[in-house]
Amino acid sequence: MRYEELTIEGRNAVLEAFRSGKTIDRLFVLKGCQDGPVRTIIREAKKHDTILDYVEKERLDQLSETKKHQGVIAFAAAYEYAQVEDMLKAAKDRQEDPFLILLDNIEDPHNLGAIIRTANLAGAHGVIIPKRRAAGLTATVAKASAGALNYTPVAKVTNISQTIKELKERGIWFVCADMDGETMYRLDLKGPIGLVVGSEGEGVSRLVKESCDFTASIPVAGEIDSLNASVATGVLAYEIVRQRIQ
Amino acid sequence: MRYEELTIEGRNAVLEAFRSGKTIDRLFVLKGCQDGPVRTIIREAKKHDTILDYVEKERLDQLSETKKHQGVIAFAAAYEYAQVEDMLKAAKDRQEDPFLILLDNIEDPHNLGAIIRTANLAGAHGVIIPKRRAAGLTATVAKASAGALNYTPVAKVTNISQTIKELKERGIWFVCADMDGETMYRLDLKGPIGLVVGSEGEGVSRLVKESCDFTASIPVAGEIDSLNASVATGVLAYEIVRQRIQ
Repeated sequence: MRYEELTIEGRNAVLEAFRSGKTIDRLFVLKGCQDGPVRTIIREAKKHDTILDYVEKERLDQLSETKKHQGVIAFAAAYEYAQVEDMLKAAKDRQEDPFLILLDNIEDPHNLGAIIRTANLAGAHGVIIPKRRAAGLTATVAKASAGALNYTPVAKVTNISQTIKELKERGIWFVCADMDGETMYRLDLKGPIGLVVGSEGEGVSRLVKESCDFTASIPVAGEIDSLNASVATGVLAYEIVRQRIQ
Repeated sequence: MRYEELTIEGRNAVLEAFRSGKTIDRLFVLKGCQDGPVRTIIREAKKHDTILDYVEKERLDQLSETKKHQGVIAFAAAYEYAQVEDMLKAAKDRQEDPFLILLDNIEDPHNLGAIIRTANLAGAHGVIIPKRRAAGLTATVAKASAGALNYTPVAKVTNISQTIKELKERGIWFVCADMDGETMYRLDLKGPIGLVVGSEGEGVSRLVKESCDFTASIPVAGEIDSLNASVATGVLAYEIVRQRIQ
């Protein structure tokens, strides 16, 4: 298991962290801030015996990584990285086919957060990121995930392509997002599946792409190159959802 | 017609602006910067007789709105807001059913940019935003749109709900994104259509929602509330694309 220090910023993110049962070491609240949402957060903090500090705006700004703290910053014990094994177990417990999202070099923390958020809502069992060249689970990621980081496990692996090979032996199919692939609507995306998405600039790396069973493309009509990475992941993930539902 | 002053920042955005035929008043390049992409931009600038200034990093940082200028900032003559009429004409010229995206109070410029990018690739004929309480076409929007702002028209209207009423009389159906709506896969989204998406916090306002013909929801499985606004728009827009293709 790996741990990373983490500040959680913004009202929704902090409240969500309390409600999901995450251990909050310490809570900083803007002095004089008394509106409803902040009072709810303070109530949660007292319920959990969290150390509570009322501080000036300057202090919050200084602690803030996102610069959008909305008057509340919490220090979480840690976001814990999960193991891929935990995700497979979660799928089994829910009697669902595994649905994993693998990110090859997504470096933008807003995109990583938005993708974890999408993974949660699309019913994926986890997100797998590589140890190198990837955004870690920072406060920016946590905020962009809108609380999903508390529910959807994220695993860090040394080698995405190796992980794919191991999971293929356990019956999971891998579909790689690529402009040159078959239109996603024409592919059979049902069953145990791993969706592999690359960075905006470079896409999925050659080795990872070659490890996949097939490649899927999103049909495009316009003049520009590609969708935002988190939008593309959302569109592909929901094509998988559609095929699972129907 | 309305105009807004605009700086275009970052290599891809600047190059895209030149190539799309946009009038660039002036180009600022980091002194001593000589790599391939920058040389390509300088060549375009000379071809178009653009005033070219080589400046220090401090000057660029000062001019920059996004703080990610990558050594190049261009001053565009203006991003021109389109008229809704132009979008309908574009659809007619392409012999396609109109496909419009209407945003009710999207205030985050990154989301607005990502949505314009999605609109371009999904083949929508334009994006309609309200004059009040909405992000304008700033440099941050232009950069997040990855060049799409040069191709996909954006119109500003006084009253979204009034615009919907007028367009309904011309045979366009309006679908509103809402958690309480019918699952999008079960709706018939073919034909002339306007997709209406609200802000993340508040969704589509009541008046606008009541002006729509039906409401569509994205099926959600997870613990958190909602998708990122630009991801949700992408998922819905591509359900429309899927139904149009098939």
